[in-house]
Amino acid sequence: MSFFIQQMTIIGVGLIGGSIAQALRDQDLVGRVVGVTRRRETLQTALDMKVIDEGTACAADAVKNSNLIIICTPVRSIVSTVKEIVPNLMHNAVITDVGSVKGNIVRQCETMMPESCSFVGGHPIAGRERVGVAASFPSLFQGSRTILTPTSNTPQHALALVRLVWEAAGSVVEMMDVDYHDQVLAATSHLPHLMAYNVVNTLSDLEEHLRQEVFRYAASGFRDFTRIASSDPTMWRDICLENRDGILEILKRFQGDLDHLIQRVDEGDGDALHEMFSRSKTTRDRVLAEHAVLRGDR
Amino acid sequence: MSFFIQQMTIIGVGLIGGSIAQALRDQDLVGRVVGVTRRRETLQTALDMKVIDEGTACAADAVKNSNLIIICTPVRSIVSTVKEIVPNLMHNAVITDVGSVKGNIVRQCETMMPESCSFVGGHPIAGRERVGVAASFPSLFQGSRTILTPTSNTPQHALALVRLVWEAAGSVVEMMDVDYHDQVLAATSHLPHLMAYNVVNTLSDLEEHLRQEVFRYAASGFRDFTRIASSDPTMWRDICLENRDGILEILKRFQGDLDHLIQRVDEGDGDALHEMFSRSKTTRDRVLAEHAVLRGDR
Repeated sequence: MSFFIQQMTIIGVGLIGGSIAQALRDQDLVGRVVGVTRRRETLQTALDMKVIDEGTACAADAVKNSNLIIICTPVRSIVSTVKEIVPNLMHNAVITDVGSVKGNIVRQCETMMPESCSFVGGHPIAGRERVGVAASFPSLFQGSRTILTPTSNTPQHALALVRLVWEAAGSVVEMMDVDYHDQVLAATSHLPHLMAYNVVNTLSDLEEHLRQEVFRYAASGFRDFTRIASSDPTMWRDICLENRDGILEILKRFQGDLDHLIQRVDEGDGDALHEMFSRSKTTRDRVLAEHAVLRGDR
Repeated sequence: MSFFIQQMTIIGVGLIGGSIAQALRDQDLVGRVVGVTRRRETLQTALDMKVIDEGTACAADAVKNSNLIIICTPVRSIVSTVKEIVPNLMHNAVITDVGSVKGNIVRQCETMMPESCSFVGGHPIAGRERVGVAASFPSLFQGSRTILTPTSNTPQHALALVRLVWEAAGSVVEMMDVDYHDQVLAATSHLPHLMAYNVVNTLSDLEEHLRQEVFRYAASGFRDFTRIASSDPTMWRDICLENRDGILEILKRFQGDLDHLIQRVDEGDGDALHEMFSRSKTTRDRVLAEHAVLRGDR
């Protein structure tokens, strides 16, 4: 099935926004691309790279004649951005976002939609070690997964368009209940990230002499394990605020398991420890064998 | 400085034992290599690969005429192995091990040494994703670190020999206090491994329907983060039993930090969360910039 978007607005022209624009442009699936960014330098780079045809710092201006608006701002700004653009949306405009937390955002944005316009929650799961439009490229989403979180209010035509957009970019699109999405992400992404942060913080707090040695001997396991602790602190603060309930639930489960582990180590209960580690190894090995792990990081 | 070992015994002919034997052989630094393994197949492979000249299942027999004995068994077997070989050690024999926990082992093995023989605690920090003598190769230790943990009882000549052996294999050798070693390893290696196990266990305990989704969406961050949760459960049980105190201390620190994190998420304290994540990111980025991370995993 093919489609053509006459005008599209990307709010937040960075790695994600820049890459989806390029993916659609390269296939002539979009007429005009308007970019919104506050930084002059980003604007110029995006224009030079022909990611956008036109750029502005004003989101409200940028959406006036657009059929599709993709909001690629940090999660904490999505709701305020939608508020800002609502008065200027054209008839039948479809708005989607790329936030990694969905519950609150989808609920709030839906209630703001004018008649005939639709908000479709989206979450392309793509690696984000690099940031900025300069790092964007059209095949970023090839082989990735994108989760869409329609609700009973989502019109079929809007959902179909957003789906086609991500599929055109090479992503495998799946639908998920909006709260369920946040639970799944809390477990697969937020828990590992927060625990990697926590490990590094625990090590940072060691007495100076021990800390020095600890970091000297930090081996490759440590490097892999904590790679995700170098992610953007602002993004993770926002994720914790937006997905508070999902994160609290999984952290408390983890905390219970940790208490259990500490007790077993304290008691020197070798059998119980062996059983815990075996179970974990079996699970992980099975998971990796069963599910092809797709590219992407959160 | 050069050296030559007339006869060396490797007890436990696997990745580590096979690789150190090959490293010394390739440089003509050893005359005869005797291997000890209970598995016939391993014995044959080691002979076929010319890793050893002779093999036996009996450690006591194998050490009779050896100047250097390297114990490469699992950590829980080191003390009992030393007990077994003590009656047959030749005059001036030097015994060393490759266990990743040192405190108890070094203390117990030292007290068993006959007059003129010496035990030197050693820990080559080398990757162990693959196991078995078939995976061994002479350059395994090139660019790795090896920690030796001499005590006030360690004769200089014995320490010098063990040091030369690891340096000849391409490893950077450093000395560390034996208890300090266990604290450092608890922080750099045991904590990350146990937390990776714990994350996987927490996810395994999710309700079936959620668990399925969680593992489907497990992205590359999860894969890297939990890679170390596929390590050998027996080895990790043994490490927990042998380094109980060091591990308990670091786990309790981590637990305290986790309680703190949960409280901040619960309160929605964005500033405190941002500060925690920034600190962690800064620490990790600095550590990786300052210290070249050497090969090796635990």
